[in-house]
Amino acid sequence: MSEIYLNSSMLQELNLFVQDYVTKTLLSRAESQQNQRLIATTTLFATLFLFYVSYKLLFTSSLKVKPINFTLEIPDAAKNNWKSKRLVNTEIIDPSQPNIIQSHCPATGQHLSSYLPKYNEDIDEMVTIAQNAQEEWAKADLDRRLKVLHTLHEYIINNQEIIARVTCRDTGKTMLDASLGEIMATIDKLNWIIRYGPKHLQPSARSGTTNYFMEWYRGTEVHYEPLGVVSSIISWNYPFYNVISPIISAIFTGNAIIVKCSEQVIWSSEFFISIVRKCLEVCNEDPDLVQLCYCLPKSDKYNATNYFISHPGFKHITFIGRKTVANKILNCAAESLTPVVVELCGKDSYIVLESQKDVSSVSSLILRTTFQSSGQSCIGIERIIVSSKRYKQTVQLLKDRLTTQPLRLGSDMDHLENIDVGAMISPKTFDSLEELIKDAVESGATLICGGSRYNHPNYPQGHYFQPTLLVDVTSDMKIANSDLFGPILLVMKANSDEDCITIANAAPYAVGTCVFGKNVKQCRYVAKKLKTTDVTINDFTTFYVRQTPFGGISGSGSGKFGSKEGLLSLCYTKSISFNIIPHIPTPIPSLLDYPIKNNNKAWAFIDSFITGAYTFSSWKRVKSVFSMAKNSK
Amino acid sequence: MSEIYLNSSMLQELNLFVQDYVTKTLLSRAESQQNQRLIATTTLFATLFLFYVSYKLLFTSSLKVKPINFTLEIPDAAKNNWKSKRLVNTEIIDPSQPNIIQSHCPATGQHLSSYLPKYNEDIDEMVTIAQNAQEEWAKADLDRRLKVLHTLHEYIINNQEIIARVTCRDTGKTMLDASLGEIMATIDKLNWIIRYGPKHLQPSARSGTTNYFMEWYRGTEVHYEPLGVVSSIISWNYPFYNVISPIISAIFTGNAIIVKCSEQVIWSSEFFISIVRKCLEVCNEDPDLVQLCYCLPKSDKYNATNYFISHPGFKHITFIGRKTVANKILNCAAESLTPVVVELCGKDSYIVLESQKDVSSVSSLILRTTFQSSGQSCIGIERIIVSSKRYKQTVQLLKDRLTTQPLRLGSDMDHLENIDVGAMISPKTFDSLEELIKDAVESGATLICGGSRYNHPNYPQGHYFQPTLLVDVTSDMKIANSDLFGPILLVMKANSDEDCITIANAAPYAVGTCVFGKNVKQCRYVAKKLKTTDVTINDFTTFYVRQTPFGGISGSGSGKFGSKEGLLSLCYTKSISFNIIPHIPTPIPSLLDYPIKNNNKAWAFIDSFITGAYTFSSWKRVKSVFSMAKNSK
Repeated sequence: MSEIYLNSSMLQELNLFVQDYVTKTLLSRAESQQNQRLIATTTLFATLFLFYVSYKLLFTSSLKVKPINFTLEIPDAAKNNWKSKRLVNTEIIDPSQPNIIQSHCPATGQHLSSYLPKYNEDIDEMVTIAQNAQEEWAKADLDRRLKVLHTLHEYIINNQEIIARVTCRDTGKTMLDASLGEIMATIDKLNWIIRYGPKHLQPSARSGTTNYFMEWYRGTEVHYEPLGVVSSIISWNYPFYNVISPIISAIFTGNAIIVKCSEQVIWSSEFFISIVRKCLEVCNEDPDLVQLCYCLPKSDKYNATNYFISHPGFKHITFIGRKTVANKILNCAAESLTPVVVELCGKDSYIVLESQKDVSSVSSLILRTTFQSSGQSCIGIERIIVSSKRYKQTVQLLKDRLTTQPLRLGSDMDHLENIDVGAMISPKTFDSLEELIKDAVESGATLICGGSRYNHPNYPQGHYFQPTLLVDVTSDMKIANSDLFGPILLVMKANSDEDCITIANAAPYAVGTCVFGKNVKQCRYVAKKLKTTDVTINDFTTFYVRQTPFGGISGSGSGKFGSKEGLLSLCYTKSISFNIIPHIPTPIPSLLDYPIKNNNKAWAFIDSFITGAYTFSSWKRVKSVFSMAKNSK
Repeated sequence: MSEIYLNSSMLQELNLFVQDYVTKTLLSRAESQQNQRLIATTTLFATLFLFYVSYKLLFTSSLKVKPINFTLEIPDAAKNNWKSKRLVNTEIIDPSQPNIIQSHCPATGQHLSSYLPKYNEDIDEMVTIAQNAQEEWAKADLDRRLKVLHTLHEYIINNQEIIARVTCRDTGKTMLDASLGEIMATIDKLNWIIRYGPKHLQPSARSGTTNYFMEWYRGTEVHYEPLGVVSSIISWNYPFYNVISPIISAIFTGNAIIVKCSEQVIWSSEFFISIVRKCLEVCNEDPDLVQLCYCLPKSDKYNATNYFISHPGFKHITFIGRKTVANKILNCAAESLTPVVVELCGKDSYIVLESQKDVSSVSSLILRTTFQSSGQSCIGIERIIVSSKRYKQTVQLLKDRLTTQPLRLGSDMDHLENIDVGAMISPKTFDSLEELIKDAVESGATLICGGSRYNHPNYPQGHYFQPTLLVDVTSDMKIANSDLFGPILLVMKANSDEDCITIANAAPYAVGTCVFGKNVKQCRYVAKKLKTTDVTINDFTTFYVRQTPFGGISGSGSGKFGSKEGLLSLCYTKSISFNIIPHIPTPIPSLLDYPIKNNNKAWAFIDSFITGAYTFSSWKRVKSVFSMAKNSK
């Protein structure tokens, strides 16, 4: 899967790199005490690097499918120091133009673009175009499909900054948030599908019947066939990943897809869709396999959103969003029997067990996963549950880290200042977040920092909420049971390791949980007891949406995306059973053939046949075979 | 998996059997010309038998889990020559007692029993009892679960006649129908789960992240956990199989189950449920894991059926029935996000290709699968599509077989006469069936035999419809697009093999299709082109509900039961990711740790990290590793 060729200029460049690195980094700084950690890190990377290069040189061959390189014009608003008017009213719909959707940058309030929403006839047309494109695409072999994905992969690897800038501009998040949450997640999915996807789409052989008289000559295979046109209805929090991830799965499985993006992020979604369409184009495939739809957020007179959801042209719906919308979608899909994968919010927790004596490394993970994208992640961490013996220490450390040098809010686009946490998509939830925090404090929780919205001096139109640390939270507080989707860190004290499980299982949602402890056996025990779909031991599962079946249960959703399960949910199964040795028919014994000659004998024969075919006792089988023979006279 | 021990009396018995068999069957009849087929069949069975005995003796060990034998009292109505009053009004609800459900035998009209339906509080109570029982059952290891299934298996093998008599009495079908459609299907499922189930419930190891720097030290497993209490809402056509099959899957996966049976077959369902409850009891398990519910068919003032469907206590619903009910169930489940497997009707077809020169063996299969259970099968055959060159021959053969000695209708319970086809569950569909046949004849089809209801001279209260052969049917006729669920054989002429595919794909339902032809390659080609979920080549798939994912698409349903897929749909997945070598943490590089020291450097580092981790080019990886090292300074 890897290209191995080093020409002379490459070797020269490599040599220079190594010389430069060894002299400047290692030798000149070795004496410095504070750089020992750096040296350790560097050594680790160098070892890994050597290990992989040797491995690749020895075991892998060059790529079978070559990607095609292409470029796209960078949208102006994604360029450095872009200027634009700041909106006074940052609503999605400008009141003066009620049928136009306007996009803005949540970090600065700058106007990005305006859009005419899609209506019923537009949707019909898109579906028809997609159906036509899919008919041809269904015939594409895996190499053709992989070529498109390789081309997309190459574009993303080479254009990370452009992608990050587009997503930051439309969501207000930081470049680092975009990189870790969107680009890394997307490229990991692409790599996973390129490496493991083909295996999962191969027909799977099944055990035949367990009938002892038939199992040796009948074979069965399950084939996976494309569904047709599918759709994804996705949320705004990770526009790049949310748009691209269902597209990757859909086109790899031979389907066409219409993505309905959130009206909050049309501007970036348009760009991301144009990447995939260009990919298809340069690979000589029909770009209409992938299309973008967006409607007015409130029901217009045509009720276009409902029309989209219940369109009989869709054979599968992937939904990421809120429960109320999910209920509506499932109701519409009930009529057409369309399968729907529903991915809602979680109330994910970190569990710090007693055996986790060093909480400092955990604290870095806690902060990253809580404040990543201002807490607006389906799999973001919303609760830290700490076993009593580690509680004081954990709270102290988090308090120190968040108050000594408070996290800085702002816009990261032009790198004018160092920023830790970006803006939120809109100020809609600010009232309820402040209310929940107030309620928690009144019920006994302690607010260490943050707790309310933030009016940024440079960006008064931006939507900022202060990074918040709330400790001594208990399970009975409202805040412990609501999905916050904001930069709010809750710390809860458990009486024991066992109590950690009780608290974690008390929330009405269930997606992910991370368990930290030095006692691996105890971690495994806790993992087993948790009522949740994803457990990570001693890490944050930054990659669990690719190779494992991702999707919550209870209040968190139903169905799976990601992994083999997610891929196959975009296919219909076709079981084909056949004779292993051709031309051996399964005759209907003449005794059982219409018209039945003798009901009594037929019964005696079939009774013995079933016993002989399915008993686990060889003695019974012996008897039944003779009884069959006797009754067949 | 088999017991091999032969004591002296067994050997003596075997010896007598062989002597008896050889002298009476083979030697004395060998000279007779017409018995050659019998000898061939016998030789085949004897060979198979020897083959298996040797195989089992050589390769298998004795059962790890021993079944427990038990008996149940046979219901009076299932005994020979049972007498009871015949109902004048065979409605489910006796008009004089509007809150009582009455059961009757559809073949004779005899009254079986009367039942008080369940109401909302009964349902609440059942769910609570089931939840309590499941808490303990979830902890049961596979051996405990297998012991129950083995015990059930043993009971069924030993009591086939009782089971068949109970099901015949309640549905009016023949003993042979019960044996082939209910007992064989159920026992095959049990054997399949006992043999292959444990493998499917084992945790599955997954590929880890495809990140080159992390893939070697992080591992991932997917575990399958019981959902809790599940329900099945099932149709009346195969009461034994439909009741028992979801129970087998549910208890094997560690769940409790409440079965809501059709009000048409409460009498037999009560008995079948009592078998399983007794099984649990003799195995020292809680019988409340399995319970039966039935409600008034029309909405009563409490609307108990809706209350059952939308009960939040159910974590999964399996539904077998009609589309209108499915829509209602899906709507109710939309609120609670409960996953629903929907299994509706099909319009399954047989395709006879040009290369199938001998149509006589196919004709026996056609008749069996069309008239089995009077055509009341989800996977019954409703259309025979014949390639033009075989059309005349096929029609002639079917005509001869159905008119020379017409199939006999009646009650098979007391073996008073030889019966081919039993009664139907009720006369409700008779008007519409007659109407559809009339419409087809007016549109150009030819009615060869049958076509209307039949008033049986001995059983005037029985519900009989004449076995019907209708030929020259075309795709545009109403009858070709409606699910008939009756003893009606439609024959359609295709212009070519290719045209067979077009006709088969034209119906709005899609479950199963059987393809017959001597040219195996052509059969495979047709199988590939069919828009259906189950294709059988040169056989009727009597066993496709066990080892392959069973369930239609389009108008035929969604979701799967049977097979690994069906079993796992009754579990929730818990993905556990962990360090393969313990105590290697995934540190957040200090550059990316909050507070961010330098956004520019952090960006450059993560950009290189992603390239290095995910590129397929080793050269790019070399460069990115050094760039990471440079930026981490």
